[in-house]
Amino acid sequence: MSERYRKGIDIAELLAADKLAHFVESGIAEVAPDFARMVIEFAFGDIYSRKALDLRSRELIAIAALAASGTAGSQLRVHVASAEKSGISKEEVVEILMQIALYAGFPTALNALADCHDLLTDDNCLSGACG
Amino acid sequence: MSERYRKGIDIAELLAADKLAHFVESGIAEVAPDFARMVIEFAFGDIYSRKALDLRSRELIAIAALAASGTAGSQLRVHVASAEKSGISKEEVVEILMQIALYAGFPTALNALADCHDLLTDDNCLSGACG
Amino acid sequence: MSERYRKGIDIAELLAADKLAHFVESGIAEVAPDFARMVIEFAFGDIYSRKALDLRSRELIAIAALAASGTAGSQLRVHVASAEKSGISKEEVVEILMQIALYAGFPTALNALADCHDLLTDDNCLSGACG
Amino acid sequence: MSERYRKGIDIAELLAADKLAHFVESGIAEVAPDFARMVIEFAFGDIYSRKALDLRSRELIAIAALAASGTAGSQLRVHVASAEKSGISKEEVVEILMQIALYAGFPTALNALADCHDLLTDDNCLSGACG
Amino acid sequence: MSERYRKGIDIAELLAADKLAHFVESGIAEVAPDFARMVIEFAFGDIYSRKALDLRSRELIAIAALAASGTAGSQLRVHVASAEKSGISKEEVVEILMQIALYAGFPTALNALADCHDLLTDDNCLSGACG
Amino acid sequence: MSERYRKGIDIAELLAADKLAHFVESGIAEVAPDFARMVIEFAFGDIYSRKALDLRSRELIAIAALAASGTAGSQLRVHVASAEKSGISKEEVVEILMQIALYAGFPTALNALADCHDLLTDDNCLSGACG
Repeated sequence: MSERYRKGIDIAELLAADKLAHFVESGIAEVAPDFARMVIEFAFGDIYSRKALDLRSRELIAIAALAASGTAGSQLRVHVASAEKSGISKEEVVEILMQIALYAGFPTALNALADCHDLLTDDNCLSGACG
Repeated sequence: MSERYRKGIDIAELLAADKLAHFVESGIAEVAPDFARMVIEFAFGDIYSRKALDLRSRELIAIAALAASGTAGSQLRVHVASAEKSGISKEEVVEILMQIALYAGFPTALNALADCHDLLTDDNCLSGACG
Repeated sequence: MSERYRKGIDIAELLAADKLAHFVESGIAEVAPDFARMVIEFAFGDIYSRKALDLRSRELIAIAALAASGTAGSQLRVHVASAEKSGISKEEVVEILMQIALYAGFPTALNALADCHDLLTDDNCLSGACG
Repeated sequence: MSERYRKGIDIAELLAADKLAHFVESGIAEVAPDFARMVIEFAFGDIYSRKALDLRSRELIAIAALAASGTAGSQLRVHVASAEKSGISKEEVVEILMQIALYAGFPTALNALADCHDLLTDDNCLSGACG
Repeated sequence: MSERYRKGIDIAELLAADKLAHFVESGIAEVAPDFARMVIEFAFGDIYSRKALDLRSRELIAIAALAASGTAGSQLRVHVASAEKSGISKEEVVEILMQIALYAGFPTALNALADCHDLLTDDNCLSGACG
Repeated sequence: MSERYRKGIDIAELLAADKLAHFVESGIAEVAPDFARMVIEFAFGDIYSRKALDLRSRELIAIAALAASGTAGSQLRVHVASAEKSGISKEEVVEILMQIALYAGFPTALNALADCHDLLTDDNCLSGACG
């Protein structure tokens, strides 16, 4: 296990232990185990672990970019489902998705809100307990 | 002048007085004056003015979403050129654009860095003085 | 209720009373009530209500742009499901979606046709009765 | 010369004789002559020539889809530069581009307006005489 | 039946007889029969039939472009489900989808792997027997 | 210098010594030196260096995905400018870009051909000598 992987998995688990484990390791690790490892190493070990931005900022960026893409609903859900772990409240998640309408149009913002609807209507769901 | 416009122009000027004025009002206001007004009213008067997110968070979201889109270089420059006004440092802008590679691929991140190259290499350029 | 909202809801109801009410108000209004209001105010109250384009033209534009995006299947369905209300026939909807292949590629056009398949095979479904 | 090409070139010339000839034939025909022919045959000979939509509707769709894509500025210009030939006025072109903000966000709409700025500020430029 | 259609259907059937027949002809042919014919004529009759690239190269390009788009999961599946017919192994499909992360980001690559998960975990599924 | 970097730079130099060096190292390395290193390490050291696909296949995929994105003209040029080094001829590059029209529409394919026009009209330009 590389140092990059170890650093990455620490952050990934802090963010969304079961979710990420499930997401990355189940389906993907079965057909592309090297890729599952690379995602942890590069996304979390190389990028997220850099000190220049705190975790709350990293997650604002992740949620904004994933929502704006319009094609990453399941990844958006992983980050929204653990938003509170980096200090982002439910009200703030809703504001991020509303602001996305400015840059990516109303359908993309409405779809992002719909993708996360269950997470945003259950008071216990942004702490990593649902998703 | 509507209350929405007044609130919007206050934020727009706080962010990037001359830049935004220039960007929105010159070319666009000439051919689509109602649209220039709507951008101020809706983007800044309705969305940015909401209290649930502070200005630094709004700008992290704006820079992330604009960079990830891959087609909004000039809007990205407006926000990067005034990043310091909302408390985002040059080092943080670079981190945001690097993180975008995760969600939108390397070419999009490299192009965003290239779009903002002059702003990011001049120490005085994130305070609204260049752009 | 603002004048903008009143104008917007009139057009939205004319287009797709139940559909739009359902789409915008149920899920979205629950988590983001201000945003549901803004969509009505801005999209229909500010833009659609402008006289410079008739409703048929507005709907041709909506269907074309939504289909071309490739990520707005549910919004596309709302507009297709009420196409006849703005004078667009089933044959014309099919032609719009075929033409989209030129600008957005064959998969996007094929997916748009598939997204609307049930609406386009039931003779009663473009008058707002299905969807 | 195929019947499809003959039908296609008739429509292409009706729309934008010199522009399209220039656009498709100069650079593209030099490196990919078969492709230049296919564009005329398929886009104009097969699709545009179908009677189920009139030319004004076809051009509303083209301008909407090209503007919404955010990456087709030069093709957008070709269609805007001959908008009047299919009965679309300058005021209507501006309305189309404003409406695009709903589906593709403000930066995309603003960029489309900027891409066509010179065409939209010269009273003689939507009849195929500029561009 | 045009010569272009005959050439196209030959290649389409060689690639994915039942799949393509099902995909293109069932739903689409019902609402847009001319379009189903055009897809065969243009995509396979005009483009795929050209000798300058062998079928393996054509399919590498198709899988790469469809995966990178992020919105063509069902078309991606059609091509992956018959990958072995053009000499592309399961291991190679996985490598293509991993490489797509470089150009279109991790979520797009992960979604492509998930879209094809069942095809990539059943040893008999890239020969056209599943999908 | 990590082993990943060493492997990556070997492939990057084999492909496009001066071009890539210039592209990645000049502008980007100045503002984001860690990111320039990561691109080499991850894109070329981790992905391209894997044996499961030969270099010709890797480059077919790169050119297809970059062209299809519609926003990566400069990266597309880097790969096209060294196409012959991985055994892809000028005629084959043109075929790839034509085929992209199927998946990403005609404007995207036409823009890719225009982006590479000078490289495709000079007989010496696909060997890494221009660009």
